[in-house]
Amino acid sequence: MADRFTVTYWIAAASEAEARTRAEAVALEQTLEIPRDAVPRGYIEDELLGRVTALVPHEGQQGGFRAEVSYSNDDVGGDFLQLLNIVFGNASILTGLRVIDIALNPELATLCGGPRFGAAGLRERAGAHGRPLFMSAIKPVGMSTAELADRAYQFALGGMDFVKDDHGLVDQATSPFSDRLAACVEAVEKANRETGGRASFVPNITAETSVALARAEQAQRAGAGAVMLAPGLMGFDVARTLARSESFDLPIVTHPTFSGASTITPTTGFSHRVFYGQMTRMMGADAVVYPNFGGRFGFSEDECRSIATGCAEDFAGLKPVLPTPGGGMNIEKVPAMREVYGHDVIYLVGGALLRAPEGITEAARRLVEAASAA
Amino acid sequence: MADRFTVTYWIAAASEAEARTRAEAVALEQTLEIPRDAVPRGYIEDELLGRVTALVPHEGQQGGFRAEVSYSNDDVGGDFLQLLNIVFGNASILTGLRVIDIALNPELATLCGGPRFGAAGLRERAGAHGRPLFMSAIKPVGMSTAELADRAYQFALGGMDFVKDDHGLVDQATSPFSDRLAACVEAVEKANRETGGRASFVPNITAETSVALARAEQAQRAGAGAVMLAPGLMGFDVARTLARSESFDLPIVTHPTFSGASTITPTTGFSHRVFYGQMTRMMGADAVVYPNFGGRFGFSEDECRSIATGCAEDFAGLKPVLPTPGGGMNIEKVPAMREVYGHDVIYLVGGALLRAPEGITEAARRLVEAASAA
Repeated sequence: MADRFTVTYWIAAASEAEARTRAEAVALEQTLEIPRDAVPRGYIEDELLGRVTALVPHEGQQGGFRAEVSYSNDDVGGDFLQLLNIVFGNASILTGLRVIDIALNPELATLCGGPRFGAAGLRERAGAHGRPLFMSAIKPVGMSTAELADRAYQFALGGMDFVKDDHGLVDQATSPFSDRLAACVEAVEKANRETGGRASFVPNITAETSVALARAEQAQRAGAGAVMLAPGLMGFDVARTLARSESFDLPIVTHPTFSGASTITPTTGFSHRVFYGQMTRMMGADAVVYPNFGGRFGFSEDECRSIATGCAEDFAGLKPVLPTPGGGMNIEKVPAMREVYGHDVIYLVGGALLRAPEGITEAARRLVEAASAA
Repeated sequence: MADRFTVTYWIAAASEAEARTRAEAVALEQTLEIPRDAVPRGYIEDELLGRVTALVPHEGQQGGFRAEVSYSNDDVGGDFLQLLNIVFGNASILTGLRVIDIALNPELATLCGGPRFGAAGLRERAGAHGRPLFMSAIKPVGMSTAELADRAYQFALGGMDFVKDDHGLVDQATSPFSDRLAACVEAVEKANRETGGRASFVPNITAETSVALARAEQAQRAGAGAVMLAPGLMGFDVARTLARSESFDLPIVTHPTFSGASTITPTTGFSHRVFYGQMTRMMGADAVVYPNFGGRFGFSEDECRSIATGCAEDFAGLKPVLPTPGGGMNIEKVPAMREVYGHDVIYLVGGALLRAPEGITEAARRLVEAASAA
């Protein structure tokens, strides 16, 4: 008998009987995907067919039920994407159904691998202890490499730990990837020489997989501090490939672009905690960018708190990672963010610093100081 | 000045003024992603900033508005995933916003490349003219290679043009990929020798990208008729990589697993026509699997009709592809499907044939006959 793992779904249903019928349909859909009466007896029915192991009313105003479904490691067959496919494959096309928890076993935790650095590793690399971390994005697209590198310099001079590419910067003619990488690493190092700090540059490597993997190695050779990629565009196995690579040894930051629909409807997709917390750790990234509450996207404070929980809580031994909330952040939002995240967070602040009357560096300094105050 | 392309969004808004504000916010978010008052004058503002080029009330009971936003090819910089990122990157995290049309220009159509075979190429390879095409899936996971190959044989003997792996079959110990590929190709060829037909086997190559690309080439060498992959798990550039590869020359079938949330909420994500029709063609696949109306998923007849439209209509010169509706199909549903799809369709029928009292082959024959009747 193989080990089993559990996925918990929220299920819309008017009665427990209806919820059980739906849960059993999910357990069948996610594994054998044939009519129940065509399931072969023996190993397939006994081991591979998903099992509804618990069904309870869901607490909270949304109503419905929580169903725990247990699956076999043999359904997964040692394939990471097949693990995700069992968690929420065809069932992702159903409404009134949402993944609200994943519980792994040791064999699957090993399959995932998890973050190479995690929150502690990121702190170590940045030399940042007893305070939150800080990240800014250089932008907009269309600026020259020199202009973008100057922004990187100013951000680093102001105390940002990480200066990343905007996720819309790829290899446009106005600032080709290779030129920008070299110039921004140098600009951040120049700031470090002045501040004595350990800021680093984080290029966006999102691209066709072979190109992205080559850019990751290029980034490492050039002296970048991490790389950023968008799993919603590139797929959910690229971070893991990099996190387990023998020739690559940098932290990975994920960006949520293109995959917003995965969480924003409360009755479909994944809970915020699962998608931005658990999945980030399963795929081996070290920090996860997502839109903070109170910005220009609609995540609630509770949803953001749940992401922080999903990044930090015990999860089959996979290292904790750092939530990296952004999207309209500014110094006025620091108290509310400190209340939610404490110091276990990367403040991602960009646009607000660009238009600060005192200039980028001074505005960054003020923000770092305000957020680092105990 | 670079060429421009247009994305049309449905926008929830109570008034035209609100809709315009939201549309302009999208145009900014998808390109420069900095506060409007921090946008540099000149090339960046004039060329790279998205422009709202039309705004009209949306017909239909959902209300809201249709906004056309024009973007520059320079925003894309020759990167396919960046094209998707412009179409619906951070905006995917907004509610009350849905992509309802993409209009490409010739340069971007060349960037996409599009399907190598398309609907006509699939027909040519299958020798299937003047009738719909047929596909079945071998399953469930847990069966031995010999048992699965026997099912492949029976499906092919019954007249299926394509026999594919279930999307849950990867490399499990009960039927490793390489063994299954060899056995199923042979089983289908055996059926072809008896029928004189041209059925072919379609393995599921979904896996970590490097593994998937190797399996694609292995499938070609082994004599497979096409390959299947899941963009929602693997990312949206893998099909395109294969469709443009010099060493790979098989059709590609996409599977919707894991990406259901992209369309199932009518006020977020993508319209069915865009996601399953236009996007399939942009990424270079030749056929798209999705759940048919009247099955165990919730797509409506209108939504399925719109997918068929998106697969076939003029789209910047990209070849038409074949809709491949499945998910609970059976012979009783043939008349309704013929009404919607005509002959431009691949009937994907699986589970219903497995429990037919007359046996798989005979049940497949009856279905092929019923659906092929003019």
